[in-house]
Amino acid sequence: MKIHYKNLSTKSYGCYKDLKNIKPFDVRHTDAERIKSYIVNEASSLKFFYAFTPVSEDILKCFQTLSEEAQLIEKYKELLSGKIMNTGENRMVLHHLTRGRVLDSVEVFADGVEKGDFYKKELNKIKDFSEKIRSGEIKTPYGEKYEYVVQIGIGGSDLGPRALWHALSLIKKPEEQLNIHFISNVDPDDANLVLSKIDVKKTLFILVSKSGTTQETLTNGELIKKYLKEKGVNEPDLQTVVVTSESSPLSQNKNYAGIFLMDDFIGGRYSSSSAVGGLVLSLAFGFDTFKEFLEGAHEEDVYCLNSSVKENGVLLDALIGFYYRNILKYPYLAILPYSQMLNRFPAHLQQLDMESNGKSVNRFGKKISYSSGPVIFGEPGTNGQHSFYQLLHQGTDIIPLQFIGFKKNQGNLDVSVNGSTSREKLNANLAAQMVAFTYGRKNEVNLNKNFSGNRFSSLILGDIPNARTLGALLSHYENKVMFQGFLWNLNSFDQEGVQLGKVLTKQILSGDSNDENLKAVMSLFS
Amino acid sequence: MKIHYKNLSTKSYGCYKDLKNIKPFDVRHTDAERIKSYIVNEASSLKFFYAFTPVSEDILKCFQTLSEEAQLIEKYKELLSGKIMNTGENRMVLHHLTRGRVLDSVEVFADGVEKGDFYKKELNKIKDFSEKIRSGEIKTPYGEKYEYVVQIGIGGSDLGPRALWHALSLIKKPEEQLNIHFISNVDPDDANLVLSKIDVKKTLFILVSKSGTTQETLTNGELIKKYLKEKGVNEPDLQTVVVTSESSPLSQNKNYAGIFLMDDFIGGRYSSSSAVGGLVLSLAFGFDTFKEFLEGAHEEDVYCLNSSVKENGVLLDALIGFYYRNILKYPYLAILPYSQMLNRFPAHLQQLDMESNGKSVNRFGKKISYSSGPVIFGEPGTNGQHSFYQLLHQGTDIIPLQFIGFKKNQGNLDVSVNGSTSREKLNANLAAQMVAFTYGRKNEVNLNKNFSGNRFSSLILGDIPNARTLGALLSHYENKVMFQGFLWNLNSFDQEGVQLGKVLTKQILSGDSNDENLKAVMSLFS
Repeated sequence: MKIHYKNLSTKSYGCYKDLKNIKPFDVRHTDAERIKSYIVNEASSLKFFYAFTPVSEDILKCFQTLSEEAQLIEKYKELLSGKIMNTGENRMVLHHLTRGRVLDSVEVFADGVEKGDFYKKELNKIKDFSEKIRSGEIKTPYGEKYEYVVQIGIGGSDLGPRALWHALSLIKKPEEQLNIHFISNVDPDDANLVLSKIDVKKTLFILVSKSGTTQETLTNGELIKKYLKEKGVNEPDLQTVVVTSESSPLSQNKNYAGIFLMDDFIGGRYSSSSAVGGLVLSLAFGFDTFKEFLEGAHEEDVYCLNSSVKENGVLLDALIGFYYRNILKYPYLAILPYSQMLNRFPAHLQQLDMESNGKSVNRFGKKISYSSGPVIFGEPGTNGQHSFYQLLHQGTDIIPLQFIGFKKNQGNLDVSVNGSTSREKLNANLAAQMVAFTYGRKNEVNLNKNFSGNRFSSLILGDIPNARTLGALLSHYENKVMFQGFLWNLNSFDQEGVQLGKVLTKQILSGDSNDENLKAVMSLFS
Repeated sequence: MKIHYKNLSTKSYGCYKDLKNIKPFDVRHTDAERIKSYIVNEASSLKFFYAFTPVSEDILKCFQTLSEEAQLIEKYKELLSGKIMNTGENRMVLHHLTRGRVLDSVEVFADGVEKGDFYKKELNKIKDFSEKIRSGEIKTPYGEKYEYVVQIGIGGSDLGPRALWHALSLIKKPEEQLNIHFISNVDPDDANLVLSKIDVKKTLFILVSKSGTTQETLTNGELIKKYLKEKGVNEPDLQTVVVTSESSPLSQNKNYAGIFLMDDFIGGRYSSSSAVGGLVLSLAFGFDTFKEFLEGAHEEDVYCLNSSVKENGVLLDALIGFYYRNILKYPYLAILPYSQMLNRFPAHLQQLDMESNGKSVNRFGKKISYSSGPVIFGEPGTNGQHSFYQLLHQGTDIIPLQFIGFKKNQGNLDVSVNGSTSREKLNANLAAQMVAFTYGRKNEVNLNKNFSGNRFSSLILGDIPNARTLGALLSHYENKVMFQGFLWNLNSFDQEGVQLGKVLTKQILSGDSNDENLKAVMSLFS
């Protein structure tokens, strides 16, 4: 089949035009029947519930046609087959391969190796190293067992690994975990805070930078070296491992306690399932936990091949997001996980989505004339209920919502108070919010107590927030963003928007800029 | 002077109409002169920099007229004088009074006391108690010094105190601090995580709920009681203090180690300067630190009385926010603090702003016909640069930005790498981003490397993120939100939007709902 890459327009896609003419479903009319039937099973226990989104059967039919017209599944297969999908940087996009082969027989060659084998080899290195650190077979230069791990990285080398580490931190008993910390910000207060909490002589440092040139990460690496030397550690490199690419300057230093490789075919924000996330998670919880995470992600990756919109919750979620953005014109999406373990998951999704699809030009570098990626924000429930939900319920604008929920807890602690457990209260709150946003409640006497309803939401529901489910959940979002990028005809895999700031920062620091405005701004800080 | 409360309309305010007809300033034309002059000094070292916002001299003149027409300063004085500003709940709004008397001679009586004296008395209780805990004069029931403090509260009893505690956590040496933790979410995994990190026999618990009926907080209180009893603590109340109102059921239990009072005139999200924030901050860092925080907030509160828009950065910030929302029609605002210490400050501001002004009815309960509060989101820089800044620079929509910066660090650690310190790099990044967003950079060959510029930003700049500056910063935002509420003619001090969810949750938990839809949703979780 020939693959066409077209801009989103009524000319390219007949059903896009149709969608503009169909009335959105008023979710206040949702009955119990619709609630029971508008659910799709995904992989690893996940379900996608969309009865409270404004889609009707007619709209779903259009989605199916649009998905076929835009060849969304075929494009996914192209990506999996090693086609150049990162057009701006002329690179393949291979993060799925860190979890396994989604298309059985496909092999992808680059840099003189088959990439599936390459990632597997790196995975085995992670297994071997993490097991030896955890067992104490590999000791500190002082002959002791490592107790702390500090990952130094920023953006994709920080947000995903940090969110996932936090999300799994009740999966093992405290005594079965290493103490994990992260340093990301070039603000030295960040490193200062972490250093005040660790015993540096019992700490393994993981320096993560694909290019080996990231300003923040190299600076923090040097700051820590200096600090360690002050504390009597003469050879900090012996307690440091790096995660980087083969061509990076970091991979040349043979003093490091280990070198774990990724490559240019894995974007930072898609690197949680590579050594970037894998090493720290394996050290924290054991390799088996990371392996389960990879299996969950892989199952969901395979699941995403299904071309039926009604059977592929990820594809459907992507299309609903497109519908919010391009038909109903909402510029944002709130992500609301009802699990404290997923505290920092919205911050990771913020990067994943906004850095991938926050673009104004298509994959060929031409300006687009339609809206692309929305603003993503969110905090866990029930906390958010006591914070910004006021605006979600009664503000002057409608904000599409996506809830994430689980049937069970990760930890064992619970208590029954006034006839219900905390877990039951958590899910009762989640259900109550979904119902409140959907149906509202009239109060014509006191309008400040009136809830108009018809505020849309979907729900991704899992059994328990364990490694497997979280892997599937991450894959859900990565692939959702990918499908939306296809629809918008974007290159979702570069990030040129971060470059200008870097260039100007260098000019300021080197002092070789004659720009009067830049100088005037800098003088504010002196 | 007679105070009028009018809706925002071209009928009410002549200059609102004018504003619609004046062209916004194209910030790409900002020259060094404008950069140097569009700065307002605030209290406690803060400055408000607005050269990169789209306001011209003509617009500033309109702002001045609008501020006078809408009687913004007069309404602030009304509030300070104890007028009923929380109209929906028929309450005064007195959080300023926890910092001091902004209007010298004004006394406010309620509940049979003068409220300024009442807050002062509670403040003295905080001083006395926190000093005795820190010195070890008050010991645990087991005769040891308290080492841990766990605050149990949600929403306003959590976000502000947590953000401020984190923001100050390098202000004293680690050995001079108590170990602070927070539990907020009804998800039992939240308490589980915290309990795994503390020695319960050396922990003081602070239970915070104004009404004494908050479901999450009471449940977590019970969960912890049960856990403590399992760990052999027979009388958990003896290591528990409460922050609540006099009429709350919690204030009746005489077993507690202490009872600290607030009242109905202080909204949860405005309670950081009451015992809600004051007790935990005084325990963490010592009362002097909290006192400095209050002084900073009070200085800024007094500063906000200035009726000249060009001399009152808070008023100006409020008007610029209104301009973004109602003239230029932007539905969001990103808050981007360049300090890792302010990591969770955006989450607090999200509540402060969105819960206060996310309303569709005016202070008299009538529907409004204009946009009110925007969506607030943000993460600290430089982290955000490697995350969602891609969309801010090159997305299809413009998002107004507010940076927060400091000249110095809170901690002492720093290092020079490649000719500059981390602090210098941090501020070079901030300056570079402001310049990049403002001026952009043309690239007509590779449009994916093109930056259109004219993306607006302001900056709140302080010398150092210490207690005094943070107090002023908090006051800046609280008063900004208040001024905007006046402009929109809202009651910024209630939160009826949180009620429906509570009602439905209770129905679910008690099992006495016959709502088929609610039951169908609940069945998803079983």
